[in-house]
Amino acid sequence: MKIIVIGGVAAGTSTAAKAQRELPKAEITIFEQDSDISYSGCGLPYYISDLIEKREDVIVYTPERFEARKGPRVEAQHTVKKIIPDKKQVIVKNVLQNTEKKITYDKLVIATGAKPIVPRLAGVDLDNIFTLRNVNSADRIKEFITANKPQKAVIIGGGYIGLEMAESLLEYELDITVVEMADQLLTNFDRDMAEIIEENLTSKGIKIITNDGASEFKGEQKVNTVVTQSGQEIETDFVLLAIGVEPNVKLAKDANIELGSTGAIKVNKQMETSISDIYAAGDCVENNHLITNNPVWIPLGSTANKQGRVAGNSLAEVEDSFDGILGTAITKICNLAVARTGLTAREAKKEGYQIVTSTIKAGNHAGYYPGYKKINIKLIVDEITGKILGAQIIGETGVDKRIDVLATAIYNEMKADELIDLDLAYAPPFSVPKDGIMIAGLIANKKRE
Amino acid sequence: MKIIVIGGVAAGTSTAAKAQRELPKAEITIFEQDSDISYSGCGLPYYISDLIEKREDVIVYTPERFEARKGPRVEAQHTVKKIIPDKKQVIVKNVLQNTEKKITYDKLVIATGAKPIVPRLAGVDLDNIFTLRNVNSADRIKEFITANKPQKAVIIGGGYIGLEMAESLLEYELDITVVEMADQLLTNFDRDMAEIIEENLTSKGIKIITNDGASEFKGEQKVNTVVTQSGQEIETDFVLLAIGVEPNVKLAKDANIELGSTGAIKVNKQMETSISDIYAAGDCVENNHLITNNPVWIPLGSTANKQGRVAGNSLAEVEDSFDGILGTAITKICNLAVARTGLTAREAKKEGYQIVTSTIKAGNHAGYYPGYKKINIKLIVDEITGKILGAQIIGETGVDKRIDVLATAIYNEMKADELIDLDLAYAPPFSVPKDGIMIAGLIANKKRE
Repeated sequence: MKIIVIGGVAAGTSTAAKAQRELPKAEITIFEQDSDISYSGCGLPYYISDLIEKREDVIVYTPERFEARKGPRVEAQHTVKKIIPDKKQVIVKNVLQNTEKKITYDKLVIATGAKPIVPRLAGVDLDNIFTLRNVNSADRIKEFITANKPQKAVIIGGGYIGLEMAESLLEYELDITVVEMADQLLTNFDRDMAEIIEENLTSKGIKIITNDGASEFKGEQKVNTVVTQSGQEIETDFVLLAIGVEPNVKLAKDANIELGSTGAIKVNKQMETSISDIYAAGDCVENNHLITNNPVWIPLGSTANKQGRVAGNSLAEVEDSFDGILGTAITKICNLAVARTGLTAREAKKEGYQIVTSTIKAGNHAGYYPGYKKINIKLIVDEITGKILGAQIIGETGVDKRIDVLATAIYNEMKADELIDLDLAYAPPFSVPKDGIMIAGLIANKKRE
Repeated sequence: MKIIVIGGVAAGTSTAAKAQRELPKAEITIFEQDSDISYSGCGLPYYISDLIEKREDVIVYTPERFEARKGPRVEAQHTVKKIIPDKKQVIVKNVLQNTEKKITYDKLVIATGAKPIVPRLAGVDLDNIFTLRNVNSADRIKEFITANKPQKAVIIGGGYIGLEMAESLLEYELDITVVEMADQLLTNFDRDMAEIIEENLTSKGIKIITNDGASEFKGEQKVNTVVTQSGQEIETDFVLLAIGVEPNVKLAKDANIELGSTGAIKVNKQMETSISDIYAAGDCVENNHLITNNPVWIPLGSTANKQGRVAGNSLAEVEDSFDGILGTAITKICNLAVARTGLTAREAKKEGYQIVTSTIKAGNHAGYYPGYKKINIKLIVDEITGKILGAQIIGETGVDKRIDVLATAIYNEMKADELIDLDLAYAPPFSVPKDGIMIAGLIANKKRE
């Protein structure tokens, strides 16, 4: 059996590795347009800040090591130009040699990921305007900073990547401005929670502009000014564009593979697309939201990895399924961990839920034990059923634990007042006898009465 | 309504505070034989090691502050000598004044806790043989160490308290020997996991003797030698007895309140004892195990707190219930967090389960991110149903998170192969895309086939 995988980052390599383990004799080839495969996109901001010093540390496998350890062939710097489902062929371009050939497959996997949205603004092609997409793009930013010792940076976009990069650039003692079109940072958080982040970034000296977007980049060859929609002119030595990402679906669309309402590729629980023997996984597909059962597009590395496993099993006809996601995510922004799971209050209302919420500050562990910190917990609860719909947690420590417990609780459709019944681990260095999530559950439940 | 609460630590104060909140007009009195109430027993080893410097820091409320903040009256240094259910009276001794009086109650709560078992061995009454029970007993140990600058310590018992105290005494650069009767430390862990702790303690210079108990203490007035059952003589400057604890049930037993098969007080889900209008909560009661539905006695501060809340609600006739426990526990032993939930392999077999287990080492977070550590995860799974029965985790960091997720999973009767379906939070500083608990779940499930 010949299997072709288009894309060699999280989903592509997971799929190929799993399929090869189940089908030792299959000929599996990964085509990746980039020179690197199997890197951690989520690690790139830390590579830029030099917290992770070595380039090779954000790369899990080089093509050679992946081939040796996992089996599939890896063709890096090969771009798939077209999928021809009728003939079960792909047209592949060898970027270095500038040659094209047609290759036949028995089964095909689309793992083309997502890419940064680049706004079509005047001056967007000037030098020193960067996006962060892969290791090479991180290299370009890092090399620019090292060579030019810039003083000022403007980040367009206040989402995860924009804010992680703001943290990263703080390490270089830059004068940083973040410009966000919405009326708050981190629009996938409720505004009251996002304000905690905004205050924290402001206290670190980062300038935040909300309700305003970039309208033009000025400069001669190199950017030197960002003009905003409200007419502000911000001098800068470079710009990072981080207004968002979009699924890479051109190949799929051109092959008449069905896209979903989110614009990403539609797949079933076995990661099959609308065309037989063509699978898709990772940031290019949409997912079922486990609470609403509606399709959502929330591209994340953990989802890509797990979907790769399911796609690999499906290729080998091993029973497996990817049932959906809860939109759980976490990031570190300076000293704060910022996490969410399920629906925000805004999302829940938009989905038609009648909700109650509780927002509390609670200790990470016993108050008398060194390292005590207060963390902010917001719980969103269905007023009718009492079920937990979502949570957002922000704090210096103990955030990841609590969001994971709540993600597990939501997965199991627990009610807010059931959290107190959980037998969580207590000892002074780790927690308090009645955890904040339990208190938040009781308070939210009380509001239902 | 007159409510009397016997015992003023975790369960007693929680009960009284909750009842007062629900019944603002009730006359609630706590009788506590000790001079302190509302202290953190779990914090005492850290107080002794001076990690927590101030005595008042391990005390949540003084009697005065509790009265002012929560409402109930607190009578410290008052020992309840007898309960007379027929007359709804208790006989209380004022320890300082050496007077006794009878007091009438409408409802009574027994929160008498647990106490260290002191073996009846020759020489056990010699000076410098200590137990750790309350703040005063911690003071005695701390004062002894400060005044006498001992060189050597012997700890009898290798359970939580014994090992937490071993860590604590390491701070004083003492020559420490731990003597444990069983063939392993921490008998509520499986032996393979306990060995990790044993190796770690040995590497810190602590001597571990297993399969041997104390048989005699020698010395003139002060202890200077521990003689073991195998005949070893260990020279020492002081001894800590930590062979275990037992429930304080004398009062209950004398009042003909039903005890359970574990020897602790039997209560229903509303924390009612067998005699009407008498409730019990905390370390003196036995609990329903949520997996086996058998009674167990696992005294822990978190359980006591939660039971206090339920008892308080029951006193006020507010609907609430305490359904049971999973035996979740965590402790810090030197640099290692050591945690468990559900059943160990040994316990599961004893309960008649046919089990499979998986034991793996997994990363706490992304390998390239600073602070990477491997943690040890053992999962115990029901071979027939695939349900997770228990887990044990040991490591330097990320242990509390994973044990709490697994405690939540077990509470919801999740199967091992469902863990991979959880949408846990991933980012390099916090986790890996496919968490170790997911891998452990898949491996254990595979063994069922």
